[in-house]
Amino acid sequence: MSFENRITQLFNIELPIIQAGMVWASGWELASAVSNAGGLGILGAGSMYPAILREQIQKTKAATNKPFAVNLPMLYPDLQAHINIIIEEKVPIVFTSAGNPKTWTSTLKEAGIIVVHVVSSALFAQKAEAAGCDAVVAEGFEAGGHNGRDETTTMVLIPLVHKAVKIPVIAAGGIGTGAQMLAAFALGAEGVQIGTRFVCSEESCAHIHFKQAVVNAGEGATQLGLKQLAPVRLLKNEFAIEILALEREGKDKEALASFLGRGRAKKGMYEGDMKEGELEIGQVSAMVDNILPAAVIVKDIWKEFQITAEHINTLPFTRSF
Amino acid sequence: MSFENRITQLFNIELPIIQAGMVWASGWELASAVSNAGGLGILGAGSMYPAILREQIQKTKAATNKPFAVNLPMLYPDLQAHINIIIEEKVPIVFTSAGNPKTWTSTLKEAGIIVVHVVSSALFAQKAEAAGCDAVVAEGFEAGGHNGRDETTTMVLIPLVHKAVKIPVIAAGGIGTGAQMLAAFALGAEGVQIGTRFVCSEESCAHIHFKQAVVNAGEGATQLGLKQLAPVRLLKNEFAIEILALEREGKDKEALASFLGRGRAKKGMYEGDMKEGELEIGQVSAMVDNILPAAVIVKDIWKEFQITAEHINTLPFTRSF
Repeated sequence: MSFENRITQLFNIELPIIQAGMVWASGWELASAVSNAGGLGILGAGSMYPAILREQIQKTKAATNKPFAVNLPMLYPDLQAHINIIIEEKVPIVFTSAGNPKTWTSTLKEAGIIVVHVVSSALFAQKAEAAGCDAVVAEGFEAGGHNGRDETTTMVLIPLVHKAVKIPVIAAGGIGTGAQMLAAFALGAEGVQIGTRFVCSEESCAHIHFKQAVVNAGEGATQLGLKQLAPVRLLKNEFAIEILALEREGKDKEALASFLGRGRAKKGMYEGDMKEGELEIGQVSAMVDNILPAAVIVKDIWKEFQITAEHINTLPFTRSF
Repeated sequence: MSFENRITQLFNIELPIIQAGMVWASGWELASAVSNAGGLGILGAGSMYPAILREQIQKTKAATNKPFAVNLPMLYPDLQAHINIIIEEKVPIVFTSAGNPKTWTSTLKEAGIIVVHVVSSALFAQKAEAAGCDAVVAEGFEAGGHNGRDETTTMVLIPLVHKAVKIPVIAAGGIGTGAQMLAAFALGAEGVQIGTRFVCSEESCAHIHFKQAVVNAGEGATQLGLKQLAPVRLLKNEFAIEILALEREGKDKEALASFLGRGRAKKGMYEGDMKEGELEIGQVSAMVDNILPAAVIVKDIWKEFQITAEHINTLPFTRSF
């Protein structure tokens, strides 16, 4: 079971399936399980103090001899400390997000690290390419977590980014199955980054209450909120319904930030408070029906990807090729 | 050049490419051109008085001997008059939208008409199937015109609807190229409904100023607005920017309806007032770069659909099948 394209070659992995580095979900157990299964596992540094990040990197290295990555939101206050640790610990790949790729890409590249930047528009993809990034993740409106202001969906974003840059494009947002992975490849992607489905892996460190809420989520269970602060896709629990109502009433940034307070995401996703916590998840939660080992998720997606390709291959017109 | 699946068989057409029946754009010239090119052309009855609809149907019949359809928004005040004309004129296919499919499907079916209902969720798709519809159009968040409140994107909606119903699914929203059409087929669709790209056909009766504005539209040029009334995707012209600001300020329904006034869509899309008019268009406008004959658009999409299928067929893993 393997596949060769620019993404598997760039990361030296077997399958172009990348597990998103999510806050409060992606620790060493998940990242090493995905890497061991042939994909690329990513630690989510956004919810880790520097000492925790170092420990998580060391545990990942102990649990797998395959490549893995760290996701680094560049708005993080301890960013320099994080970067020093990543270089010292010889992390082979870094995914940067939420910031300007010009600021840190050359530092990381000089340390021999492969750098991928997460974007939500073709314009930012071009900036990432110009900054020297090796690839981009293009993340559509349907994704969980923080999203772009243009609200461009994966179906439109991937072809736009694919056309705008020469570096390989990894599709994210609305992808949790092999059929969706194949759709992304039809649109020009060479890899996929999957978050929501891996939240519901056994190895994810998200709270079991959160995992169960994602399994139970159906159509329309999420909504993009906090648009005045930083847009984020939320599972519509009591907290989300309240803050979405405040937004509709036209409350200003300060009022929203004050209601939001601090530590909401940890409270929800890590500590399991399903009422008061902030629960970041993608629309594809409507399609996640169980909690499985990460390796089984990787294999299922890969198998369905191949079955879908076979379906395309047997469409009636192909006989006339 | 032909293709056989449940959609081409149902409509008795050559290619599973359906031109959306759009207000102020889809008259007899466009519908007959698409049907003559092997797809399914649709008249947009939502912007036609009954006498105009009859005239447009008669002109379509004179211009093509191929099947065509009428799109019927069921909130239209003259609905009974429209339905009588459709039956009298022996229109073979009707696409209903914006209303309950239970109300009219049996009347239309008893008259021997094929009925397709437009939905934005799997739940409504099941209701359409239960009402006796022959197929559904599943329309994602990225689509132009009126959209569902769940904001589910095409990437997530199509697999959900495909799983929920046995009748064939036509994908809409974010589809303007053959690569996007193939992505939709990977997700389970058996046909695509394309609006935005056909707005920019030579035969579309949209105003040339509107066509040019769509050609010039880039990423982030549209936004879903009027969420308290009926959500609609708008090109962000002066009018849209003003009404979106009123929404952010928390203005109520009455204030929004009053600012909106009447006849805004006609003013923009048909009369070409790019400042004060309401311009309904999809996110895929960012990918539309020219105004072409409808037959050329159909052929381009079909050719790219086949090229994309060939690309999938040559992905490295397929050698191991």
